[in-house]
Amino acid sequence: MKKYVYSFSEGSKEMKSLLGGKGANLAEMTKIGMPVPYGFTITTEACNKYYEDGKTIDPAIIEEINVKLAQLEEISGKTFGGGENPLLVSVRSGAVFSMPGMMDTILNLGLNDVTVVRLAELTENERFAYDSYRRFIQMFGDVVMEISKSKFDKIFDGQKEKKGVQFDVELTAEDLKEIIVEYKALVKEEMGEEFPQDPKIQLMEAVKAVFRSWNNDRAILYRDLNGIAHDLGTAVNVQSMVFGNMGSNSGTGVAFSRDPASGENVLYGEFLVNAQGEDVVAGIRTPQPIAEMAEAFPEVYKQFAEIADNLEKHYTDMQDMEFTVEQGKLFMLQTRIAKRTAPSAVKVAVDMVNEGLIDKKTAISRVEPAQIDQLLHPTFDADAVKNAEKIAEGLPASPGAATGKIYFNAAEAVEAAANGEKTILVRQETSPEDLAGMVAAEGILTQRGGMTSHAAVVARGMGKCCVAGCSQISVDEETKTVTVAGKKYGEGEYISIDGTTGSVYSGEVKTIIPEFSEEFKQLMAWADEIRTLKIRTNADNPRDAKQAVEFGAEGIGLCRTEHMFFEDERIPAIREMILSETTEEREKALAKLLPFQKSDFKGIYQVMGERPVTIRLLDPPLHEFLPQTEEEMKIVSDNTGTPMEKLQALAEELHEFNPMLGHRGCRLAVTYPEIAKMQTRAIIEAAIEVSEEKGITIKPEIMIPLVSEVKELADVKKTVLGVVAEIEEEKGVKIPCSVGTMIEIPRAAVTADQIAEEAEFFSFGTNDLTQMTFGFSRDDTGKIIKEYVGKGILEKDPFQTLDQTGVGFLVKTAAALGKQTRPDIHLGICGEHGGDPDSIAFCHKVGLDYVSCSPFRVPIARLAAARAAIEE
Amino acid sequence: MKKYVYSFSEGSKEMKSLLGGKGANLAEMTKIGMPVPYGFTITTEACNKYYEDGKTIDPAIIEEINVKLAQLEEISGKTFGGGENPLLVSVRSGAVFSMPGMMDTILNLGLNDVTVVRLAELTENERFAYDSYRRFIQMFGDVVMEISKSKFDKIFDGQKEKKGVQFDVELTAEDLKEIIVEYKALVKEEMGEEFPQDPKIQLMEAVKAVFRSWNNDRAILYRDLNGIAHDLGTAVNVQSMVFGNMGSNSGTGVAFSRDPASGENVLYGEFLVNAQGEDVVAGIRTPQPIAEMAEAFPEVYKQFAEIADNLEKHYTDMQDMEFTVEQGKLFMLQTRIAKRTAPSAVKVAVDMVNEGLIDKKTAISRVEPAQIDQLLHPTFDADAVKNAEKIAEGLPASPGAATGKIYFNAAEAVEAAANGEKTILVRQETSPEDLAGMVAAEGILTQRGGMTSHAAVVARGMGKCCVAGCSQISVDEETKTVTVAGKKYGEGEYISIDGTTGSVYSGEVKTIIPEFSEEFKQLMAWADEIRTLKIRTNADNPRDAKQAVEFGAEGIGLCRTEHMFFEDERIPAIREMILSETTEEREKALAKLLPFQKSDFKGIYQVMGERPVTIRLLDPPLHEFLPQTEEEMKIVSDNTGTPMEKLQALAEELHEFNPMLGHRGCRLAVTYPEIAKMQTRAIIEAAIEVSEEKGITIKPEIMIPLVSEVKELADVKKTVLGVVAEIEEEKGVKIPCSVGTMIEIPRAAVTADQIAEEAEFFSFGTNDLTQMTFGFSRDDTGKIIKEYVGKGILEKDPFQTLDQTGVGFLVKTAAALGKQTRPDIHLGICGEHGGDPDSIAFCHKVGLDYVSCSPFRVPIARLAAARAAIEE
Repeated sequence: MKKYVYSFSEGSKEMKSLLGGKGANLAEMTKIGMPVPYGFTITTEACNKYYEDGKTIDPAIIEEINVKLAQLEEISGKTFGGGENPLLVSVRSGAVFSMPGMMDTILNLGLNDVTVVRLAELTENERFAYDSYRRFIQMFGDVVMEISKSKFDKIFDGQKEKKGVQFDVELTAEDLKEIIVEYKALVKEEMGEEFPQDPKIQLMEAVKAVFRSWNNDRAILYRDLNGIAHDLGTAVNVQSMVFGNMGSNSGTGVAFSRDPASGENVLYGEFLVNAQGEDVVAGIRTPQPIAEMAEAFPEVYKQFAEIADNLEKHYTDMQDMEFTVEQGKLFMLQTRIAKRTAPSAVKVAVDMVNEGLIDKKTAISRVEPAQIDQLLHPTFDADAVKNAEKIAEGLPASPGAATGKIYFNAAEAVEAAANGEKTILVRQETSPEDLAGMVAAEGILTQRGGMTSHAAVVARGMGKCCVAGCSQISVDEETKTVTVAGKKYGEGEYISIDGTTGSVYSGEVKTIIPEFSEEFKQLMAWADEIRTLKIRTNADNPRDAKQAVEFGAEGIGLCRTEHMFFEDERIPAIREMILSETTEEREKALAKLLPFQKSDFKGIYQVMGERPVTIRLLDPPLHEFLPQTEEEMKIVSDNTGTPMEKLQALAEELHEFNPMLGHRGCRLAVTYPEIAKMQTRAIIEAAIEVSEEKGITIKPEIMIPLVSEVKELADVKKTVLGVVAEIEEEKGVKIPCSVGTMIEIPRAAVTADQIAEEAEFFSFGTNDLTQMTFGFSRDDTGKIIKEYVGKGILEKDPFQTLDQTGVGFLVKTAAALGKQTRPDIHLGICGEHGGDPDSIAFCHKVGLDYVSCSPFRVPIARLAAARAAIEE
Repeated sequence: MKKYVYSFSEGSKEMKSLLGGKGANLAEMTKIGMPVPYGFTITTEACNKYYEDGKTIDPAIIEEINVKLAQLEEISGKTFGGGENPLLVSVRSGAVFSMPGMMDTILNLGLNDVTVVRLAELTENERFAYDSYRRFIQMFGDVVMEISKSKFDKIFDGQKEKKGVQFDVELTAEDLKEIIVEYKALVKEEMGEEFPQDPKIQLMEAVKAVFRSWNNDRAILYRDLNGIAHDLGTAVNVQSMVFGNMGSNSGTGVAFSRDPASGENVLYGEFLVNAQGEDVVAGIRTPQPIAEMAEAFPEVYKQFAEIADNLEKHYTDMQDMEFTVEQGKLFMLQTRIAKRTAPSAVKVAVDMVNEGLIDKKTAISRVEPAQIDQLLHPTFDADAVKNAEKIAEGLPASPGAATGKIYFNAAEAVEAAANGEKTILVRQETSPEDLAGMVAAEGILTQRGGMTSHAAVVARGMGKCCVAGCSQISVDEETKTVTVAGKKYGEGEYISIDGTTGSVYSGEVKTIIPEFSEEFKQLMAWADEIRTLKIRTNADNPRDAKQAVEFGAEGIGLCRTEHMFFEDERIPAIREMILSETTEEREKALAKLLPFQKSDFKGIYQVMGERPVTIRLLDPPLHEFLPQTEEEMKIVSDNTGTPMEKLQALAEELHEFNPMLGHRGCRLAVTYPEIAKMQTRAIIEAAIEVSEEKGITIKPEIMIPLVSEVKELADVKKTVLGVVAEIEEEKGVKIPCSVGTMIEIPRAAVTADQIAEEAEFFSFGTNDLTQMTFGFSRDDTGKIIKEYVGKGILEKDPFQTLDQTGVGFLVKTAAALGKQTRPDIHLGICGEHGGDPDSIAFCHKVGLDYVSCSPFRVPIARLAAARAAIEE
């Protein structure tokens, strides 16, 4: 027959799924001889059976519980419901995954009109005994009988009023006895029967109540929010009560085996003399730091410190413990793996390796990659932010904290920054023309746009703090005011934003600039030893490239060539190029751009040296560069001599209904080969010059975007290699460049075997691939996706974490097909997913060679890649 | 050793790839005893070897040719280059696939200064002999020696001038002899050597010239355009010359064994007494109808008629023959399968089955499905159109011919049609609001928009003639004029358009309404017997449904529910629905729409009876229905009481950057379930009512569009089935409806196993699937695709013929995955590809159950499906 109830001595920490987290750890502590009040655990399977059996406990399980109870009586030398030494127990839920505060607990079970008297005698503390009894009735009435808590409170408060006292502790034992009489009358009235005196009935009802609490509304919501399965069920722990409130030689506390904030190797926690756990929680008295316990209970403290140390060694991880001292005797009530901050996680992991407790791989698996993001960005000073006035909340679009003066346009932000001011760029939404302002500002705040809006994407790329889509603010760029809840803020006023949380504060808030600890550097070095996936970065300029290299990037996986086009001195030439009517005109405009592009690439090569650099040919639809205003159009007209009406007509012709699926990517290079030619020339000539200057060999990787058909790639490749041959001829040197493609269109993925005939490398453009695989426009479906995630239709936003089922299937298929044709094909990913830990693990699994992500995600990617290698 | 040269007696019609089409058929005719001038064929492999050997003929092949030549001399009793009876030959190219006029031919080879004299004696016609000789020198000089033709012409014309004659035939033998002297001098001057007198040298040079002509520019272009492989090579036929110009008992002709225009079973062709083939081509004299040959040469005619009959029986197909009569003796020079018009193809195929010549399957495989399109639409009277003034050419957007008075807006076109006028709706471009006008008009002419523009797609759906994107016209809807090449046409003036060719004519041109011949009906009946694929139609209204049923549709595969929304009385309610701020407002607006939708569906069910009808829930982005003008907005404001500014803001919020990938399809039903509820109610209530009225059982198929994830489908299905259950409860009847989905998003295709858990049927929406698989917006990439097809990057427009490599892979994958989960899942296709013969063959191959296409494509689809079944 299946066993549904385990004594603590029968379990172990490995039995978490059966005994729940708490039960398994209580069993483990019992097993290794720690002082644990004895008890037993009713399994999660019993909970599931309770539901299967129509919310009844199987008689066989009741029998098992009774057997365990008898053992408990025997071991404790106490009697349940009476006798010389009455047995009192706690009944606590304990699920497989921690669900703090979501389910129910009952303490002091076993008290009745008889045992309360004996308890008073034994403890020589009548007040304590009756207070325990009235608490038990109240808790049982609430949890098991579902009598409204307020009815108990009314009686209790009435008594206090009657006695003219202010605090609970002022009530005497006699007062409490009167309350108990009234409580019992309330139960009788509500339930139509007496409060149960039989502790076995009390116990079974309590167990059922805990089972029921698995499916209360807040528990279901919590599981939904935390992705915990609903069919796991909870275990129930029945444990002898110990009392920390039996006088000045008793107490209770919680402690961490190390500092969960800093990671320092010292006991960290709180302790309260003559109190039970609830009192700590209730906040009636202020606990003392754990260190002071050494003075109050030197022996017990020593014992506890030893236990903590042993538990840490036993579990080989930092512990979060609860304990009680009953009349000088220490009891361990709980231990579990401690939650910790990012700095603590890093320090503890590295220290434990140095202490010989764990190995490097374990250390790496102890630090969540997403966590270390906070180590890379400024944060608000904890005290300063407590006192700051929060005025709005937007989307946490790019992490970090920033404080500065409000500026409403890029030019003024740049100017203010040049004058040494710290600025926050505040816009309705940003466009590529705001780039310089974004670079200059400390942070960006926008009224519109989602997590993948221009502001958000660019800010993340720069590692700059950004709060986007803050609909509670109203930005008026004309009058230079931003209105929040009726209050106006003007240019030059201070504002502070937290891109990690989305919060917006008025005024200046002190920020703290992160510094990399030695432990952090050590951990990253270990990650680099272990990982097999290379980490590259997406960078379009020397500044980002430098930052990424400092963060450990091993190359550039995606250098977009279009951002460069937006700079002030270039955009007129771009516009001339776009609004050309003939190839000749276009070539003339392109000739003006060549020196700019060449110097861009030289700057990047100078930073990257011999590290690989993948440069993508022009990708976006040309209309993105079109003049926005009449004035800008006029400049083009003056430069080219093309009349305004003609330009208007040309611009109109470029309009597209669905630009995402329009004239962009390699389609530009097929229809206007002269653009690809200019870019190739810039790439190659820059490589030759920097190679010569630095005495190194630069091997540019030229990437052709948006390919859907191998012949398209072949066409553009021919154009590119034609120019390369031309330059080789002109300069008399050989350039070791390679040509590859993005796999970002579903058709490219499923015909990757053909495409690999022409492509020397694939880079998965999972942003576009996700758009087309799902039929989701990033610019339009933010709200829909949010609703889908809310409804559980999608597990996660597929633009943040790669959808392994659909998009991932195409990536896997393409990787396999590509290798089939060209076994040494080089495979990488350069979508936003390249910086997402789950997606990185997937990339490792399907055999990509590298991931490429924004500079500030590089350390996260290094760690995630190492973890993926370890998990394999 | 490999054999490179075959006597006609050694070959057969099966050896086409080796001997070329002409050579194989000459051999075949020889084999079955037809009077063919004897000769031999140098194989295509010899041609390829010629190129492999650096454009030289292998000595072994020369030796083979010489052996065959000796045989030819022996059989013909003639001597090459001399003797009593000199042997003259023709040297003709003959590729595997016919490439008319693309390669070179040399006649009269074997003539030299000696044989020309003997030829004159033998034919007793000196002029003939010398004319032949000068023609030979000229042809040889041009083709083999590549001497400019104009130089020969200059000599010839000079002689005519000198002699003061106007026509060639006026030149005497002596004149021609003088020309020959000058021709030979020209050759000497150009080539530095004498014109070759040795006929063997003449022959080898001629063979090489024919080989070379395989790779001349026009041949290469022709092969590119017709998809013929470049490595096939051409064969060379060397054949004894016969002369149709040896007097009045000689002649030449071409004839078809049946009428290639009507299919009638009579000899059809032309004949010219005392002439060679070239004369017919040159058009100097007008040939007589073949029937008149019966009078001129009764015996020969009888013999030819017998041969034609025998050839037809032998080849079991209509023949296209060339022949020559030399001094009363008939020689067959060529036979091949005859090209024919659609009516002829149908009649010949059916007649031949009735004659016992071929079976039904063969008959079906003889008619190209695309061809029969012309049998379904009006055409211009051939004589009338010859005299019409063509004023412009646009895209052939929807086939057929139409003539009528110009109207510039839908309302006026409707009114005019109500008054019995025939109208052509002329617009810059059409929008859904022009629908009524399109229905009323005979045809539609638009200035803008491509093959997949609104006008084109809707017109094809209706089977209505349409010329779209006619950029040579300028439509001014305000002033109601259309300007073509400076000339203005106003409202009420006649215009005629041909949607099959894209031509636009001024004035009225007589049209011919097609009638289905008995043969056509017979052929379609046979197709229905053979095909296994069901044919459904895309129809949104009773009119189209009725048309489709008449054309043989077996159900509706796609009933779009959005077109119905554009009608005048409905659109205000739609707009209220879209611009609602709350669910309640939206439900109120939807309640107004319910009776309309219900009556739509009733009308369709009444036509379709128990045939299956698949109805798709609302698909397009809502902003498509938005008010276009202030006035329209005002109506909504008045109806709803929502202020104009608020409406403007709501409308703006609906704006999307890429609506194709935005808030549409089932995403609407997830976010606004009330829309799906209203539609479901209309579908089900209509089904109940019509079922009761007609005493039948209607089983509606409800189709949920744009699904990318199974949970999305599950969500909407729940909404739909909830309403169904509600109605079942209300009405106390069970409705046998099914719920399925479109597979039109790549992710749906690759997760089809999961989707089939919820879907009872899949309908492949290959329009959208093509858009997303290629990343091509139909509305934007028309020009790019055209350029891609032009450059050979794409073989065909993937929106017209399904891309089997990419999109087809996804269809195949989804079909297989769907069946894996649900073996009886019903599979169909409802994109435009459902009416494309190549795509239909693909659908058959991958095991779909049906294709659905616009009503006017139904007969084509029936035939294509039968052919696919036969080919299998």
